[in-house]
Amino acid sequence: MIAIGDTKTDIAAPTRRQILRDGALAGGTVLASGLAGTQASAASVDNLPPHVPEWTRTPGEPTGSPLYGAPSPFENNVVRNISKSLPQYLSASSRTPLQDLDGIITPNGLFYERHHGGVPTIDPAQHRLMLHGLVDRSLIFTMDDLRRFPSQSRIHFLECSGNPAYKKPFGKTASDLVGLVSCAEWTGVSLKLVLQEAGLQAGAKWVVAEGADAAAMTRSIPIEKCIEDAMLVYSQNGERLRPQQGYPLRLLLPGFEGNMSVKWLRRLHVTAEPAYSREETSKYTDLMPDGSAREFTFTMEAKSIITRPSGTQRLTNKGFVEISGLAWSGRGRIKRVEVSVDDGKSWQDAQLQDPVLTRALTRFRFPWQWDGQSAVIQSRATDETGYVQPTLAELLAVRGDNSVYHNNGIWPWRIAAEGEVSNALA
Amino acid sequence: MIAIGDTKTDIAAPTRRQILRDGALAGGTVLASGLAGTQASAASVDNLPPHVPEWTRTPGEPTGSPLYGAPSPFENNVVRNISKSLPQYLSASSRTPLQDLDGIITPNGLFYERHHGGVPTIDPAQHRLMLHGLVDRSLIFTMDDLRRFPSQSRIHFLECSGNPAYKKPFGKTASDLVGLVSCAEWTGVSLKLVLQEAGLQAGAKWVVAEGADAAAMTRSIPIEKCIEDAMLVYSQNGERLRPQQGYPLRLLLPGFEGNMSVKWLRRLHVTAEPAYSREETSKYTDLMPDGSAREFTFTMEAKSIITRPSGTQRLTNKGFVEISGLAWSGRGRIKRVEVSVDDGKSWQDAQLQDPVLTRALTRFRFPWQWDGQSAVIQSRATDETGYVQPTLAELLAVRGDNSVYHNNGIWPWRIAAEGEVSNALA
Repeated sequence: MIAIGDTKTDIAAPTRRQILRDGALAGGTVLASGLAGTQASAASVDNLPPHVPEWTRTPGEPTGSPLYGAPSPFENNVVRNISKSLPQYLSASSRTPLQDLDGIITPNGLFYERHHGGVPTIDPAQHRLMLHGLVDRSLIFTMDDLRRFPSQSRIHFLECSGNPAYKKPFGKTASDLVGLVSCAEWTGVSLKLVLQEAGLQAGAKWVVAEGADAAAMTRSIPIEKCIEDAMLVYSQNGERLRPQQGYPLRLLLPGFEGNMSVKWLRRLHVTAEPAYSREETSKYTDLMPDGSAREFTFTMEAKSIITRPSGTQRLTNKGFVEISGLAWSGRGRIKRVEVSVDDGKSWQDAQLQDPVLTRALTRFRFPWQWDGQSAVIQSRATDETGYVQPTLAELLAVRGDNSVYHNNGIWPWRIAAEGEVSNALA
Repeated sequence: MIAIGDTKTDIAAPTRRQILRDGALAGGTVLASGLAGTQASAASVDNLPPHVPEWTRTPGEPTGSPLYGAPSPFENNVVRNISKSLPQYLSASSRTPLQDLDGIITPNGLFYERHHGGVPTIDPAQHRLMLHGLVDRSLIFTMDDLRRFPSQSRIHFLECSGNPAYKKPFGKTASDLVGLVSCAEWTGVSLKLVLQEAGLQAGAKWVVAEGADAAAMTRSIPIEKCIEDAMLVYSQNGERLRPQQGYPLRLLLPGFEGNMSVKWLRRLHVTAEPAYSREETSKYTDLMPDGSAREFTFTMEAKSIITRPSGTQRLTNKGFVEISGLAWSGRGRIKRVEVSVDDGKSWQDAQLQDPVLTRALTRFRFPWQWDGQSAVIQSRATDETGYVQPTLAELLAVRGDNSVYHNNGIWPWRIAAEGEVSNALA
């Protein structure tokens, strides 16, 4: 920020003037503490724009180009982050660039992906959902049939249970670490209503969901969850699901590990027992120190991460720095997020952005005065059940190091005196 | 929907069985009234899918193709609706396809456009915002400067004041009529904070905002609005603004007519008087029957529209039909939406989808039993100030027919006995 009429100043040197003028503001509302010390970067007066910038001198691009919009070419680096080490048709994924995003809604073009057999191209007119097993009437639904049910729209996060990977949490960016989480407004049908159409029989305790992808992803869901808040989803952030998110139909189990929200959903088999499919036995279970596996770890526990500043970003100015990040819990609403800027010695409450929604990403912010010295910053989430996000050390002490999934440890960032931000546990 | 084992049935004939089985549902929760009468479309058993559909037999597309995602090719018809009759560089616009969307969030690729000089391609590193006039210190901000301020994220609608056009409201679809409204989660800086950095002087009553587009769009904003809830916005639905929405920086005035939320924002001039620019004198004012013009009609009054079923759609089955639509008010939260299915003779409360946010689109739903006869359906919004959306006849009685903007009349849809939906006032 430059004051017009200033003499030329060194770009690297922060202005240190106290430039806030509270008294002159109509209404005289008191500002959030912390801003008064903002030291904006000073620019040379030589860098002032011409009176009429280049792009004002000629008409711009026409309306509707492209007809379905796209980001600015200056944002071409904001894309999903593909895990190149993973076999494409076994465990391929791409991560949301959390460090480049604001707010809580993830745009559909940047929503994380996790596929086990690639992304099928499904004609919605040909797609069917079969519902059978312990029901009074087996039913087959077209997409038009499902669109005729009463609809509902809800904002929920979706997260892969391997976020971050348990054994190699050495990523550089927030996306590398926990980019397998995103959040959207979902629209669809209450699964409870659809089950009622078929009529559940006595003994119906599980619903085995199967996808129409080449992996035929199969997961078993407790009937209680199907009745509580599960949805058959056809739209995401207003428009129809993207192919990568299960077009034309997916299951959504708010707060449960992502791959249970089966994409490209073609079958619901109501049963008395779980299927014990590959993805809930040899995969997606956590091996404990005694060699036993925890059977069914569906719910994603409370977690948070600072996304700004975060790994590979750089602080350029001492003084006011807004610390901002995301918190979420599969068990309900986030009740509290605390931030530490002294390597965990002390914690202070962050501000939560309204609305704080159940099983949705929650944006938190914390005003910080950076003294230009090295520091370790981190966040800690508490959800409405009172559960507190543990440190990684606390998690490892209980779980040992055989686990693969459900790492919800606190993730600290190290800030060097030069301002470079890096993974403090790598 | 087809019951497995049914004999072949005529596709056109609705099944009339009472298929709801409340009693068998675990928990036995009572359903929303209306669904019990759902008559799903019956399909021929000949149309059952093969046991393994084509797209399950081979691996699908790889992860990250495209790296920045895109909708399914089967949704290629869901695009913005360009007004072809308008000159490209004078009053070009494209409308959101409301009738194809669900929920309240408009995806960025379908957000409505309204430009007066085309869409400039702006390098964010070169872009500057100048703040001058009745302030203690004139300031110039880079985008990095603005990113260092405390941020906030809020969900708000944005709407063109000519939505629908006053004189030719003869569109066929919901998009034709009121597609110049959309809703997003916006992130940016409180304008109040930025004004405080400069220090407002006595007599500062207006802020004149100027865009960097070829039209140099200029609008005057009362200082009270600048301090109440105005934002300098850089992100929309998580990612940076699209070029069509003002990349890299726009003003956002929640609830005010859209073109005051100046895009490609380059200048804020603090003044004692409004600028009386072209866009607030010869345009964007409403001529009353006596020939005088209403000076400054900033706030968008309460409005609603049924988006499903809506014009050019078709009902295919008697029985349960969910009526769904959108309501909004520039004055605050929507308090109530009523629906009439008998040409305005009687009205019943619709259900509002949580969360109901201030100055945001609100999704409403109403369960209807269609008897297969012709009908006229419409919705009526009431906001938290108690203001009730008028009929078009009531509006015309007060305003006459010289107006161009701020038509918030109730819009009825006619449903023919064959199920065709059309504009009842066209």
